[in-house]
Amino acid sequence: MKARVFVTLKPSVFDPQGRTIVEALHSLGHSKVGDVRQGKYFELDLDTESASEAEALATEVSRTVLANPVIESFRLQLVDVDPESKAGHS
Amino acid sequence: MKARVFVTLKPSVFDPQGRTIVEALHSLGHSKVGDVRQGKYFELDLDTESASEAEALATEVSRTVLANPVIESFRLQLVDVDPESKAGHS
Repeated sequence: MKARVFVTLKPSVFDPQGRTIVEALHSLGHSKVGDVRQGKYFELDLDTESASEAEALATEVSRTVLANPVIESFRLQLVDVDPESKAGHS
Repeated sequence: MKARVFVTLKPSVFDPQGRTIVEALHSLGHSKVGDVRQGKYFELDLDTESASEAEALATEVSRTVLANPVIESFRLQLVDVDPESKAGHS
């Protein structure tokens, strides 16, 4: 089972990296890009038996290690590697 | 229109950050996490008229600025902000 974790700064937190990227894009002529927020993305390989166990483990790992819950929020997506089973979004 | 861009290192490229995270997780007792790959995640606000224009702009921006095509690959997801229209994955 694979888990994809998306960590983003909370909307109220200023994102200087994203700001710098927007300014770079504008200076390159991409004026239609209004805003950019940069986050982190993780792909975890999990040796778990069930989807619920995988979700619990991925949530625990995201909460305690991958994201700083004071300034960041995270979103999870489980991807079943076995093509016979119901797959997550690809 | 929003675009989400996921940038990951190509599978053949060594990912020391991911390796460090796996080792930290193992030392914390999360032995069921087999592997971690770290990537980057961007949310772009695009002032475009159509989905196809948004996709073209996001692809151009990802290819030239957000990802280094020598060692990284990227994946796009368009999210229509207008709830009346067909929405992307959330």
